[in-house]
Amino acid sequence: MIDKSSPLPIYYQIQEMIRKKMDAGEWQPGDMLPSERIFAEEFEVSRMTVRQAITELVNEGLLRREKGKGTFVAEKKLEQTLQGLTSFTEDMKARGFEPGNILNYFRVSEANSDTAKALNMKAGEKVYEMQRIRLADKEPMALETTFIHADLIKGLSEKVAGKSLYSYIENEQNLKIGFANQTLESAIAAEKEAELLGIQAGDPILWISRMTHLQDGTPFEYVKSAYRGDRYKFSIHMPRDGR
Amino acid sequence: MIDKSSPLPIYYQIQEMIRKKMDAGEWQPGDMLPSERIFAEEFEVSRMTVRQAITELVNEGLLRREKGKGTFVAEKKLEQTLQGLTSFTEDMKARGFEPGNILNYFRVSEANSDTAKALNMKAGEKVYEMQRIRLADKEPMALETTFIHADLIKGLSEKVAGKSLYSYIENEQNLKIGFANQTLESAIAAEKEAELLGIQAGDPILWISRMTHLQDGTPFEYVKSAYRGDRYKFSIHMPRDGR
Repeated sequence: MIDKSSPLPIYYQIQEMIRKKMDAGEWQPGDMLPSERIFAEEFEVSRMTVRQAITELVNEGLLRREKGKGTFVAEKKLEQTLQGLTSFTEDMKARGFEPGNILNYFRVSEANSDTAKALNMKAGEKVYEMQRIRLADKEPMALETTFIHADLIKGLSEKVAGKSLYSYIENEQNLKIGFANQTLESAIAAEKEAELLGIQAGDPILWISRMTHLQDGTPFEYVKSAYRGDRYKFSIHMPRDGR
Repeated sequence: MIDKSSPLPIYYQIQEMIRKKMDAGEWQPGDMLPSERIFAEEFEVSRMTVRQAITELVNEGLLRREKGKGTFVAEKKLEQTLQGLTSFTEDMKARGFEPGNILNYFRVSEANSDTAKALNMKAGEKVYEMQRIRLADKEPMALETTFIHADLIKGLSEKVAGKSLYSYIENEQNLKIGFANQTLESAIAAEKEAELLGIQAGDPILWISRMTHLQDGTPFEYVKSAYRGDRYKFSIHMPRDGR
């Protein structure tokens, strides 16, 4: 399958071969690839060339390496659209995953300067603060720390925090959620996040900050989330005339 | 400034102190922080506590560590909105930065299976392929590899590639750009990308794939970009009723 007389570089032909096997479903997510040595012997090429081909596909997220084990076909990433404001629970249900939460803590605390800025309040004013691990089909996907303006959203409790917050606000508090402003950044998982998410320190995460507002523009929620970079991607449709 | 009788944890009080100095402009981007030892002596706390406080702010992106040098106030990240489809050149001009390009290569090549899928063509058909380092005020920001459907966009050359592609398509080819579908992922810079972007291998990058379409829906452009995680973030406004 490798044509040494072709003008296409060998590493590139190896990549094409791997892509095709994946597209055809011959290699499925979770399957282990042959070792670099086997590849090299089969195609009569150097292990360096095989390694280059595989490293690029690892960087693209199509393959993943596990230390001391081997190279595997990566799981397909969950793709979340940025088009409209949905809660994690709503989003998971819409895709047919079973949403889950592990509540690390729920407490009443005082806004620090960062939170106060986001929620347009004074440092020291009362906020509900909670940290949840978000699960899809029981697998950890994201670590969310949420701060809620306690004077605006009344009666929050540990029990509510374990379910869907937006549904509580809209259906039980009869408040209208208007919009969120969200930023996305790339970061490296620290020890603590990695442990909670079931990944390694140094692995990539998507760091998302969300400021959510009621319909009248009042900010009520500030969320800082770490999404697993190996399991999540975000998508958006951008019209040219939306400039 | 540290109150040991407060119920607030010490590391948290140190963070608040740092945030306030940054908010007040007393510490500016690029400034070096006192060493952990100095901090610890000044506040009469353990170096472990200082390290915890600083590590969390590094993870948040407010501070950055340089090996063997110290801890610095991070540069403010460039924030790019995902609201409408703009080119890098247009976007930089709108913010008052001087856009720049370094063209690594421009060539006519054959679509591989990945590119062919994205551009709705057959593998082996002709594409223009180019790789550009995108600069803002002469600093590398992103590494972009672009594939253009050569039967749709005629007459591309190295000269055009060095300027704004969208302006060429719209103003010289008189084609209408319709929309793009874009995905954002978090990744770790490989050796090669890191070198071109002036960062370290292992640093976080934002990996963005864009498929751009003409107004009639035909895909003409497929772009894979690595944005520096330390210098870039993306923002979006999400209405609740956009669900």
